[in-house]
Amino acid sequence: MGTVRNVLFIMCDQLRADHLSCYGHPALETPNIDRLAQRGVRFERAFVTSGVCGPSRMSYYTGRYPISHGATWNRVPLSVGELTLGDHLRGKGMTLVLAGKTHVIPDVQGLQRFHLEGDRELGSLLREGGFVPIDRYDGHSPPGKESGYADYLRSRGYRSADPWTDFVISTVGERGEINSGWQMRNVRYPSRVSEEHSETAYMTEKAIRFIREQGERPWVLHLSLVKPHWPYVAPAPYHNRYANSDCAPIVKSRGELENQHPVLAAYRASDECSSFARDEVVETVKPVYMGLIKQIDDHIGRLWKALEELGRWDDTLIVFASDHGDFLGDHWLGEKELFYDTVQRVPFLLYDPDARANASRGKSDARFVECVDVVPTILESLGHPVPSHWVEGRSLLPLTRGQSPGWRDCVYSELDYSYKKVRLALGRKPRECRAFMVRTDDWKYVHWQGFRPQLYNLRDDPDEFRDLGADPRFEAERGELRERLFDFLSTRNLRTTVSDDAVEARTDMARRHGIVIGIW
Amino acid sequence: MGTVRNVLFIMCDQLRADHLSCYGHPALETPNIDRLAQRGVRFERAFVTSGVCGPSRMSYYTGRYPISHGATWNRVPLSVGELTLGDHLRGKGMTLVLAGKTHVIPDVQGLQRFHLEGDRELGSLLREGGFVPIDRYDGHSPPGKESGYADYLRSRGYRSADPWTDFVISTVGERGEINSGWQMRNVRYPSRVSEEHSETAYMTEKAIRFIREQGERPWVLHLSLVKPHWPYVAPAPYHNRYANSDCAPIVKSRGELENQHPVLAAYRASDECSSFARDEVVETVKPVYMGLIKQIDDHIGRLWKALEELGRWDDTLIVFASDHGDFLGDHWLGEKELFYDTVQRVPFLLYDPDARANASRGKSDARFVECVDVVPTILESLGHPVPSHWVEGRSLLPLTRGQSPGWRDCVYSELDYSYKKVRLALGRKPRECRAFMVRTDDWKYVHWQGFRPQLYNLRDDPDEFRDLGADPRFEAERGELRERLFDFLSTRNLRTTVSDDAVEARTDMARRHGIVIGIW
Repeated sequence: MGTVRNVLFIMCDQLRADHLSCYGHPALETPNIDRLAQRGVRFERAFVTSGVCGPSRMSYYTGRYPISHGATWNRVPLSVGELTLGDHLRGKGMTLVLAGKTHVIPDVQGLQRFHLEGDRELGSLLREGGFVPIDRYDGHSPPGKESGYADYLRSRGYRSADPWTDFVISTVGERGEINSGWQMRNVRYPSRVSEEHSETAYMTEKAIRFIREQGERPWVLHLSLVKPHWPYVAPAPYHNRYANSDCAPIVKSRGELENQHPVLAAYRASDECSSFARDEVVETVKPVYMGLIKQIDDHIGRLWKALEELGRWDDTLIVFASDHGDFLGDHWLGEKELFYDTVQRVPFLLYDPDARANASRGKSDARFVECVDVVPTILESLGHPVPSHWVEGRSLLPLTRGQSPGWRDCVYSELDYSYKKVRLALGRKPRECRAFMVRTDDWKYVHWQGFRPQLYNLRDDPDEFRDLGADPRFEAERGELRERLFDFLSTRNLRTTVSDDAVEARTDMARRHGIVIGIW
Repeated sequence: MGTVRNVLFIMCDQLRADHLSCYGHPALETPNIDRLAQRGVRFERAFVTSGVCGPSRMSYYTGRYPISHGATWNRVPLSVGELTLGDHLRGKGMTLVLAGKTHVIPDVQGLQRFHLEGDRELGSLLREGGFVPIDRYDGHSPPGKESGYADYLRSRGYRSADPWTDFVISTVGERGEINSGWQMRNVRYPSRVSEEHSETAYMTEKAIRFIREQGERPWVLHLSLVKPHWPYVAPAPYHNRYANSDCAPIVKSRGELENQHPVLAAYRASDECSSFARDEVVETVKPVYMGLIKQIDDHIGRLWKALEELGRWDDTLIVFASDHGDFLGDHWLGEKELFYDTVQRVPFLLYDPDARANASRGKSDARFVECVDVVPTILESLGHPVPSHWVEGRSLLPLTRGQSPGWRDCVYSELDYSYKKVRLALGRKPRECRAFMVRTDDWKYVHWQGFRPQLYNLRDDPDEFRDLGADPRFEAERGELRERLFDFLSTRNLRTTVSDDAVEARTDMARRHGIVIGIW
């Protein structure tokens, strides 16, 4: 145990908190991930700032809420004006290395405006949201030239111009027929790649190799796995490792379909939700989703072994998290986006090698964590100041190190559904599709632009089956929660060009600059 | 009358709307400024987004509210990530020329981050907030090297290392003694510069010369005069042009000092407010303030004459406005910042040479205008599209050109008093000093972070003497106005890297990109 010199920030994509054994899954054993919980702290109530990859990840990478970083959905470029973890580390002479997915979309207009096309190093850094990729691969599409995965597959004998489509997400049926994993009925069959050549194996190996090669030079690495995100195709033997009897039950109630909120009704009419509303679909997909997690856990085991060999457990801070969950039929929904805990709550494990964290090892912590806390946690762990006029999250080290700081009593999340078909179904314009959630211990309130709010009593109704958003008995609760949203909206970090310290230092200083106001 | 080819955007600093004859001043005649009202439209209810120079001007120059552009007070740099009028025009091959004040503070860290120190043209443009200065001079301090004014003064015989301090804002008393204009008791005496060498004369001449030199080449010019802002020193004969009997009465009531709002009480304890609470101070300063406006009007007359000679009235859009007012003792206040109409309401005249505007000439328009409307008005007048994902204001041309668009029914303003001594008096941290105002036809509501709100009934109490912010009878009104602020805060333009059209074009397009979600 010792001082933090390296940081390993591991993210899975679309991994639900309740699908790890350390978070209580009844049948899915994830001993390696659980080991991190044993060595560090398991945060029981960690939340993302959006149930969508892009905005959630941009919050993980900037330490700022979507309402501040502005990348409100998947295809929205992160403004070059935003500072990321990579920027903050670069200012301290460190490089933020990437193996895997970021979902960063380059702000091409911003880059052009600053004439950065010609500046290779800075231009490419800004295009990558501050990451320096070993291998960037966002999943859900054939890997592009920024990844070596396609070439790797071809070198291993998968002959195809697009080995991802033809092998990784294709499956082999009972009669040897080849099926596309885009169709969920086909994911009961194994992938056409062998496990050792799968996405999870490939990217974990990249990470392990990087760590080995660093030797004793310090590093900060983001290992960002694209699974268990769809296409839900698993290589053998993980494709049928679990049976339906191993699955946690679907969390849904008939009552949810009565007096539905208009936006939820529109979502439920989508392909993904009407598919996942059918038991057959859930029964096919969920065991494979579990298999993909099991596979991740096995590779995390390899990673831990490498860290052990290299002595890196002594000087490496490790974060394990996810960008959001996956409904998998819960609440009659598929995919993500909406504000149920199923999707907003994520696994969040923090291993801090510092001896001051010894007392917290193996503990669970029920204090609210938000994904914006990762940037300040990493910066503080490396001894760097947190630029609090930019970063909106808080370092978690006071929690692992046994301090008792005053702490937040709610979390926030956001959605902008303007790119979605539901926008058209609801007849709304692109700038009329915003929603904001606030969640306290007992309540969840969602403000929907142009529609009535949602309200859930999490104490009496932890499964969020009864939407009290229109119930006249709860007007006072809604008013109070709306006030919290008002505070959230009105206090975001908008003055980013001046630090609070600089404001302090310059307060009431006009006269020192020769400006004498209002003297008779 | 014809098509708009040029734009002249004139701004005065700290000019109250009610101190022009076209806005009803009882004794101060401003025939030249009034002529613009006769030739164009006089907006009776134009408001700034902040009662402070910096944030108000950054809204004028970006078309965005402070909550979006982030330059919340005078010394806060405008982020290089913000797009200004100059940026939008540059994209169309036009230059935005400056003569006078902008109050833009360069975002040095942003410039460094983008390696723009070496890029002379772009770097200097970004340092200037998109303006290309003929002469930049912000007033209230000795002119720096970005202005030729100090050299000009020396060349006219004002021998001093700092001729501004020693001549422009110094006055000559009755026994020939030299006094500093920083002390308001001394502004009853004339400036030590002659009128023809004063700030207003100098900068107006710069503008006239520029317009002449342009010939028939189109131009966009911001003439930004630093008067009647303090130091309230006027050259002869304007220093004693008006007597106290010419002044509009002070608008204040004893009742305002009872049960004062804590933030107002702190402001009222400042030097400028306790000075202006004394009749002697107002009686000394106000006539000089009026003289400075009269002087401006005379120079505006010269400018009009030049436009006439050059035929520029046929093809030049002209905006005349101010960045905020000046309390001058009203409400027991000096200076500005707070949310009374005295300061928030500004003169706003718009001359549109287009024949479609003929029917509106000489008319008054009571629809709400906000300073964020200037950028879209200028862009539309020149035939350029308004980037509505950046710009938050609306073009006023539909109003001058006789259309009847649906229009706003309230205006917003903001304050961040973290640099002020009042923050210390109130024991608050730099990020705890925000306030937001919403003003409708009948009501004004101010949200103060950490304090009770203010509420005024403008119909029954147009002078804003009775603060109903704590009156239990008006809870419903406060709730409704707070909802408007909630909408304002939750719908700002945060997704600036993608236009609405691009979102429209990409809605529900995943499948076209080969991504097939949720299909059985």
